[in-house]
Amino acid sequence: MEHGIDFGPFLLAFGSALVGAKIFGALAERVGQPAVLGELLAGIVLGPSLLGLVPLSEGVFLLAEVGVVLLLFEVGLETDLTELLRVGAPAMAVAMAGMVFPFGGGYALTRALGYEALTAIFVGAALTATSIGITARVLSELGVLKTREGQIILGAAVIDDVLGLVVLAIVSKIAQTGSLEPAVAARSAVFAIGFLLVAVAAGIPLGQWLVRIVGPSNVRGMLGGAAVAFALLVAWGAKKADSAPIVGAFAAGMALARTNRRHDIDHALKPVVDIFAPLFFVSVGAQVDVRLLNPGVAENRPALLLGLGLTVIGFLGKFAAGFFAWGKVRRSFIGAGMVPRGEVGLIFASLGLADKALPERVFVAVLVAVFATTFVTPPLLKLLRPREASRPHPAGAAA
Amino acid sequence: MEHGIDFGPFLLAFGSALVGAKIFGALAERVGQPAVLGELLAGIVLGPSLLGLVPLSEGVFLLAEVGVVLLLFEVGLETDLTELLRVGAPAMAVAMAGMVFPFGGGYALTRALGYEALTAIFVGAALTATSIGITARVLSELGVLKTREGQIILGAAVIDDVLGLVVLAIVSKIAQTGSLEPAVAARSAVFAIGFLLVAVAAGIPLGQWLVRIVGPSNVRGMLGGAAVAFALLVAWGAKKADSAPIVGAFAAGMALARTNRRHDIDHALKPVVDIFAPLFFVSVGAQVDVRLLNPGVAENRPALLLGLGLTVIGFLGKFAAGFFAWGKVRRSFIGAGMVPRGEVGLIFASLGLADKALPERVFVAVLVAVFATTFVTPPLLKLLRPREASRPHPAGAAA
Repeated sequence: MEHGIDFGPFLLAFGSALVGAKIFGALAERVGQPAVLGELLAGIVLGPSLLGLVPLSEGVFLLAEVGVVLLLFEVGLETDLTELLRVGAPAMAVAMAGMVFPFGGGYALTRALGYEALTAIFVGAALTATSIGITARVLSELGVLKTREGQIILGAAVIDDVLGLVVLAIVSKIAQTGSLEPAVAARSAVFAIGFLLVAVAAGIPLGQWLVRIVGPSNVRGMLGGAAVAFALLVAWGAKKADSAPIVGAFAAGMALARTNRRHDIDHALKPVVDIFAPLFFVSVGAQVDVRLLNPGVAENRPALLLGLGLTVIGFLGKFAAGFFAWGKVRRSFIGAGMVPRGEVGLIFASLGLADKALPERVFVAVLVAVFATTFVTPPLLKLLRPREASRPHPAGAAA
Repeated sequence: MEHGIDFGPFLLAFGSALVGAKIFGALAERVGQPAVLGELLAGIVLGPSLLGLVPLSEGVFLLAEVGVVLLLFEVGLETDLTELLRVGAPAMAVAMAGMVFPFGGGYALTRALGYEALTAIFVGAALTATSIGITARVLSELGVLKTREGQIILGAAVIDDVLGLVVLAIVSKIAQTGSLEPAVAARSAVFAIGFLLVAVAAGIPLGQWLVRIVGPSNVRGMLGGAAVAFALLVAWGAKKADSAPIVGAFAAGMALARTNRRHDIDHALKPVVDIFAPLFFVSVGAQVDVRLLNPGVAENRPALLLGLGLTVIGFLGKFAAGFFAWGKVRRSFIGAGMVPRGEVGLIFASLGLADKALPERVFVAVLVAVFATTFVTPPLLKLLRPREASRPHPAGAAA
């Protein structure tokens, strides 16, 4: 059964991407890092610039995109909409400050180094979103998820994620039209926020209806299949509405999170995400040309210096945001909790690369910043952990 | 992120294929038919000849192929190698007779109607393999899985499946080379059986080793991911060794079925198969042009008559095979249990269509036979159920 895409090399790429993702993921966790970092490293190792087992082929990209859509659906499914409203004001302040500082700093530095405005926008945007997955996992491991600090961090990370996806939709629109006209940006913002609001508002009753219809069925795989179909169709709607498919998948997840079958859906979804999401991170890693990371080569140095600068900006911008919280809380801990980037930052970066808005060297610089901020967080959070939480409770597991 | 394949239409196709598969699957089960028939019907309805929501595009075929590889991996995982050896002689006799009669009959009828030899071989081959999935499910629903009849049927269906996959590898080789030389066929048979033997023989210790290595890991999705990677890489090896990827996936499944984590792997695999396997059946259904089924159109009648003839041959050939069993058993029940075709027959048929060995009208005739034999089985088995099993035990659930 040959249909344009050669199935042999595709099987090899898919199989070895999965092997690499699991091996490097396990190694990353062994040294106290999130598995996603290992998956990115696996991509670098398996990609064309080293082993060449995972080519940058159509088939790999298609499955990687399916993977990231399913991943954002899962993140949405684990996002509590009422949580967003409850943590309220301080979380919002932290989230806003944590977007403005890194975006402004990243934009200014990139422009100062002579890159064009579109590139600078992508760089700034890639630094805005805290990784909710990584944050939640680290907080849970430290047993501080239920503290006031933990709740503010989580709330801010959720707001951050939603705003990040809105920024993503705007930025990808700008990249497609190639222009920076405020009217276009404003229209994109209205579309992106509008689509998200409509999708969630319409998705909640639709999701309830869906679960009521398919919930009692005992056809094998009915609930999970219906939920994934729902996510794919909302993702398709997002693309039709000039937003991003992952925004749609996230909205579909948040809508289904409010049904009484949320946990069953999540349970059916996890094994699927476990297989396909790593393919996204491996394919992102595979786009890194390691030769560009060698500081011995003179022409690499500007990008590496940019990466160092972005790391400092990315770190300080989020850390400072923590001090915008109020109440009897350890603000340094909140700031540290906002530092890790991860999925959304990587999505921005690879979107920028695919749309030719980010030159490859700048893409590498952004990856350096995403990696470094994520690497530095777990030990820092351990160090700054608020005293009340020194007797870790058996953590109401998150994520 | 555009990479050659347009992601918007792909999301719509994937999402609506899944919706259609689940709705029609549930309807099929409601009228006492296996869900897979509903999925095929969904494909006919959603495909280009009716609604046009699921196009015959590269992206759809790629994911459908991933789906069928994962499905055969699961079938392998649920196949007990020692069972094959234990049910022994009568099952082997039933299996062999049940391959020879339908193949010979199908080949002879197709040739008699003036089609070329390659087409006749595909038709004959598509009629050989009993659907182990459908058989096991019906036997379990009737509560006769543990009777002597049930065990012979299941054993014969397993042998049948393995031989069917060998025939598949030979036939696809013949289709590729376009020739019918006995030397080529013999070489393909040796390769196919050889690959299967080597894959299972090497796969068993490899699988044990894999489970020992990754089993204790608590990295999320490690066991399932490693198992799927194993299947993909063996499938890749099968293609490299001039066999079919699904043969490799099946061998990988049988090898992992012998590890002590078989049930955990199956548990992690099921939700993935639930999402991707329906895409295969929907894409097969989408290849049916309904206009060819209209008996009012004169030029459709030869194919429809061929379909009727193949149904009779397919039914009688398998039913007669039941009488090759011996011992104190109800032979008519065994024969009826061998009748349903399903996955493997459909794989043959769509392989033949893709390779241009089966003209579209003959493909339709084969589909008619596959559908009809599968539809007729559940009520027939109910009718012929051996008396000893009239008090159904609460069925040790299978598949």
